[in-house]
Amino acid sequence: MTAASASIVVVNPNSSVSMTEAIQRSIEPLLAASTIPVRTVRVIDGPPGIDTQQHVMQAGPAMLRAIGAMPAAAVVVACFADPGVHLLREELTVPVLGIAESAYHAAIQFGHRFGIVSISEAAIGRHARYLRELSLMDRLAGDRSIGTGTAGLNEQDTIERVKDVATRLKQDDRAEVIVLGCAGLGEHRREIERHVGLPVIDPVQAAVGFAQMRVALSQ
Amino acid sequence: MTAASASIVVVNPNSSVSMTEAIQRSIEPLLAASTIPVRTVRVIDGPPGIDTQQHVMQAGPAMLRAIGAMPAAAVVVACFADPGVHLLREELTVPVLGIAESAYHAAIQFGHRFGIVSISEAAIGRHARYLRELSLMDRLAGDRSIGTGTAGLNEQDTIERVKDVATRLKQDDRAEVIVLGCAGLGEHRREIERHVGLPVIDPVQAAVGFAQMRVALSQ
Amino acid sequence: MTAASASIVVVNPNSSVSMTEAIQRSIEPLLAASTIPVRTVRVIDGPPGIDTQQHVMQAGPAMLRAIGAMPAAAVVVACFADPGVHLLREELTVPVLGIAESAYHAAIQFGHRFGIVSISEAAIGRHARYLRELSLMDRLAGDRSIGTGTAGLNEQDTIERVKDVATRLKQDDRAEVIVLGCAGLGEHRREIERHVGLPVIDPVQAAVGFAQMRVALSQ
Amino acid sequence: MTAASASIVVVNPNSSVSMTEAIQRSIEPLLAASTIPVRTVRVIDGPPGIDTQQHVMQAGPAMLRAIGAMPAAAVVVACFADPGVHLLREELTVPVLGIAESAYHAAIQFGHRFGIVSISEAAIGRHARYLRELSLMDRLAGDRSIGTGTAGLNEQDTIERVKDVATRLKQDDRAEVIVLGCAGLGEHRREIERHVGLPVIDPVQAAVGFAQMRVALSQ
Amino acid sequence: MTAASASIVVVNPNSSVSMTEAIQRSIEPLLAASTIPVRTVRVIDGPPGIDTQQHVMQAGPAMLRAIGAMPAAAVVVACFADPGVHLLREELTVPVLGIAESAYHAAIQFGHRFGIVSISEAAIGRHARYLRELSLMDRLAGDRSIGTGTAGLNEQDTIERVKDVATRLKQDDRAEVIVLGCAGLGEHRREIERHVGLPVIDPVQAAVGFAQMRVALSQ
Amino acid sequence: MTAASASIVVVNPNSSVSMTEAIQRSIEPLLAASTIPVRTVRVIDGPPGIDTQQHVMQAGPAMLRAIGAMPAAAVVVACFADPGVHLLREELTVPVLGIAESAYHAAIQFGHRFGIVSISEAAIGRHARYLRELSLMDRLAGDRSIGTGTAGLNEQDTIERVKDVATRLKQDDRAEVIVLGCAGLGEHRREIERHVGLPVIDPVQAAVGFAQMRVALSQ
Repeated sequence: MTAASASIVVVNPNSSVSMTEAIQRSIEPLLAASTIPVRTVRVIDGPPGIDTQQHVMQAGPAMLRAIGAMPAAAVVVACFADPGVHLLREELTVPVLGIAESAYHAAIQFGHRFGIVSISEAAIGRHARYLRELSLMDRLAGDRSIGTGTAGLNEQDTIERVKDVATRLKQDDRAEVIVLGCAGLGEHRREIERHVGLPVIDPVQAAVGFAQMRVALSQ
Repeated sequence: MTAASASIVVVNPNSSVSMTEAIQRSIEPLLAASTIPVRTVRVIDGPPGIDTQQHVMQAGPAMLRAIGAMPAAAVVVACFADPGVHLLREELTVPVLGIAESAYHAAIQFGHRFGIVSISEAAIGRHARYLRELSLMDRLAGDRSIGTGTAGLNEQDTIERVKDVATRLKQDDRAEVIVLGCAGLGEHRREIERHVGLPVIDPVQAAVGFAQMRVALSQ
Repeated sequence: MTAASASIVVVNPNSSVSMTEAIQRSIEPLLAASTIPVRTVRVIDGPPGIDTQQHVMQAGPAMLRAIGAMPAAAVVVACFADPGVHLLREELTVPVLGIAESAYHAAIQFGHRFGIVSISEAAIGRHARYLRELSLMDRLAGDRSIGTGTAGLNEQDTIERVKDVATRLKQDDRAEVIVLGCAGLGEHRREIERHVGLPVIDPVQAAVGFAQMRVALSQ
Repeated sequence: MTAASASIVVVNPNSSVSMTEAIQRSIEPLLAASTIPVRTVRVIDGPPGIDTQQHVMQAGPAMLRAIGAMPAAAVVVACFADPGVHLLREELTVPVLGIAESAYHAAIQFGHRFGIVSISEAAIGRHARYLRELSLMDRLAGDRSIGTGTAGLNEQDTIERVKDVATRLKQDDRAEVIVLGCAGLGEHRREIERHVGLPVIDPVQAAVGFAQMRVALSQ
Repeated sequence: MTAASASIVVVNPNSSVSMTEAIQRSIEPLLAASTIPVRTVRVIDGPPGIDTQQHVMQAGPAMLRAIGAMPAAAVVVACFADPGVHLLREELTVPVLGIAESAYHAAIQFGHRFGIVSISEAAIGRHARYLRELSLMDRLAGDRSIGTGTAGLNEQDTIERVKDVATRLKQDDRAEVIVLGCAGLGEHRREIERHVGLPVIDPVQAAVGFAQMRVALSQ
Repeated sequence: MTAASASIVVVNPNSSVSMTEAIQRSIEPLLAASTIPVRTVRVIDGPPGIDTQQHVMQAGPAMLRAIGAMPAAAVVVACFADPGVHLLREELTVPVLGIAESAYHAAIQFGHRFGIVSISEAAIGRHARYLRELSLMDRLAGDRSIGTGTAGLNEQDTIERVKDVATRLKQDDRAEVIVLGCAGLGEHRREIERHVGLPVIDPVQAAVGFAQMRVALSQ
């Protein structure tokens, strides 16, 4: 696997086919405007969702196995827990982008303080720890959960709950930008944006956009 | 001028032809990988360089005149003082990106603390003020000047001085990334990168890359 | 214009006669206790209020024209947007004080966290940017708007709305000091102070008081 | 003692006559420009200097005894340890200003980061604790000692050592303003200022200037 | 008094016998698990509670008199205002621990942000000042008072009010740990903990625990 | 494994027998002063040292296997990378203490800013990330490496190099406390302390001391 090869590899560390397809759909607008190829893969024997520290710990080695000998110009880890990112950076010579980190870096381009729509209450403390690690805590307006684990994400009303929570982040916490705290919602991004009246960041789109830029500049 | 039109407009707020050409050359790798058109323009009746508060104050209206009725999908202000960015955001409905702001946002993706290679001693205080405004001061490892104004930039040895200063930022200030504090050096970015052994950010490349991403996602 | 001349010049960057007169009245208590002369001038061809980035950009050159060859020991820019302050510092050799900056520096002498009574919602983000630039964000308890632009300021009930907002800053945001986010209210300062039960800072008074101190110490 | 009476009382918490006279001389320029009377008193039975925690603890009650029934419009505690300031605020209804606090508040009006010329190594940690308490630590460029206790202050060369230390704060720590970390040096302020080429803050002048402003505005 | 002697001395700076007995009972679990002796003393001629700056100022010398020639391996100041701690450190060669400082240091081991249950409204500003001095302000989730002075502490319902306030700190301020802002409640700590569902820190227990650790490691 | 059982389990996540024995010796003074039993175990099939992200990722599950059904009142992870701490907290109901986290929490009790003696250059960035996550970055005076990996630790001169680096942290970085950035040096702590003239924190001692306190208070 070398930087010379042009394909960006997006790895979903869980085994969900529908999530992987949603990820693929969400990045279509970026692919349409670029000449750099992107491949989306999933960890076939991974867990259905990354919910526990056990899952986080196992994600790195599992993703390395999934990528295997596949040539890559950059790797995007498509899970908002950014699992295994440090491990992949140690093992690979190409850029490795976590989608949460990328989402935060994109969000601060649109306003001073962003709000996060989280999938579960439990994630909120983890996000805070990560934002402190990245020295970005001052930029957080609020972090609110839609009150369901990743299991609930296929339900009819998920998008409606995301819109409601995003609206509270705008009105009560004065967020100027919204970060979607989960992979797989990107195809609904512009709809949410219109509803809330604020820029909305999809983390996978952010990471793939940044990866395209890096690959273009390394050629 | 509407967001529907696909071209990114890069405006050099000064009148220098050679600088404008250097800016154009620096973004070639990004253009080669993208389907989104980019136009680079200069302010024909602008000052030769943006050196004083007077220049900064006048840049906004002058850039608006230079862009005129040109359709734009996004505007990049190609001067490291980010002059007139707030004014353009007030007047235009499309994204307006300052190159300094973009450079800082790109830099923090590559490491925790970045160093700035400044064109003049006088710029250092201005950068600090701006970084505080952006809540990014914790990410600054150091800011060192090559000891010449923009007038000196065509001299033979500019690149060598940039390399020396970047090396000091790495060794003495423990910078993990280098930001070039001036437009027009992007075509030498990879050479400087190899010399210093750290990622180097060209501000125009950063802003154009981010603009491409925004335009692609708005289509 | 040299520092040797004893007069402090207070410049109102807009053309409003009534605002200029209110500014003059607000500083009477300071003038009564000092031997240093003060002149208050307005920008005759300025806008009626400083409401847009265009106004902010134009204020610096316009104030320079208004001051002209008038001898000054210090200059106070009497608009809470602190427009043109950096430009005037570049052009003049005497101290140049912005009233917002001065109000913040006065406020932190009275308590740890201050509240700002803002004239418009739009100003709140601008204040935050400025407070970050000044590294004073930790001292802000809250910033709330009375919900009208400068056009509304002559209305009968402005003072009542200021009192209401100041009271909310005290009760809901635990502000220990109140900053009036506008020139021209200083003559009502003590009345507001009595109503709210907290120290209240008028920005023009703060800047003129600091200017008197600087001029006295330079003699 | 009521706020209605017009005199500012400057209390030197130690018994030194020469120090008290130096304090008096240092504020002459402020008195010359103001109509508000100022009285300078010392604690006759106080220690020769405030050097230990014991001295700090005893200063508050001793100053209250020294002021006695003297009418005061404001009180300035003229020792850079700001001893007894909280106690005096609890006991008195008029403004009580510490000179260290006032010096820091004056310094940040002149530049982003200030340097402190300290009398002793031991004071440096104390200043840091105080600056953190005031949320002003980000504004400190450096704190360096002239390497002598208050006992050494009458020596011929004190001023020369202050100049040397101030120059190091400028050159090595990039201070933009200098704070004199001791009462009694104000009459040499402008000489030091000329030598160093930076604004220099005398803490007693700063506190008396602020007290004049407060008293004028309360009349 | 030398470090060689094994006894930790816990000093209550007020004269209350019942408070001193409550302090003694609260540390029983720590004494039962340790071989290091602890003595609890009170300042017989001290005030009934430490409520004013006068009390704070007098506490240091009074505690020194109370300890007298008693051999001590460490001293714990058992009042949440941490009065006289700096003075005792200057006078003694053994470790001197304030219980507020210790409580904060213990609290951050249990979660990122702690809430303080304060005895009075007036204490809240003092805690903030101290937390800033200790650079721990980022760790404070909230500080709420039970609305009574130390005089009210023996009343039947104090514990119930503490539970209510602690619950609000958890629910409204998202505190992850609770700090009891007063000596003498430690024997109820586990009951409060069970009620609130969060770790609860008793400041005396925290300080004595840390003192045991220091003494053990110095032997 | 329940909290009711009295034994603290100290787990060394690597397989080194000599390191495990050194850890055991370092905590003898704490054991001598306490009635709470402590067991020290190693991961028999672990790596010789925790040097890579792979090791860090594997440490959690390996420690869980090593502890097995052993009853524990608290668990101390005896490696300065704090590997697997979050995983163990998820899996166990008793307190889990990382030694790095504990060392930082102990260090801030002894002075405002601490210095870290690191085992390798590579660890320095990792420590910074962790300190930011813990909001303790303001307390770091400096972090300097002795320039060898864990492999070098048995060499004759390790202690001398630690002393030299600690002395530089004191003299050049103004550290007020020293943190030993590695398990296994605790038996030399007091010798280093005497040499440097500053308090020195051994991370294993800190964590075991804190664990004793927690266990005593839960009984």
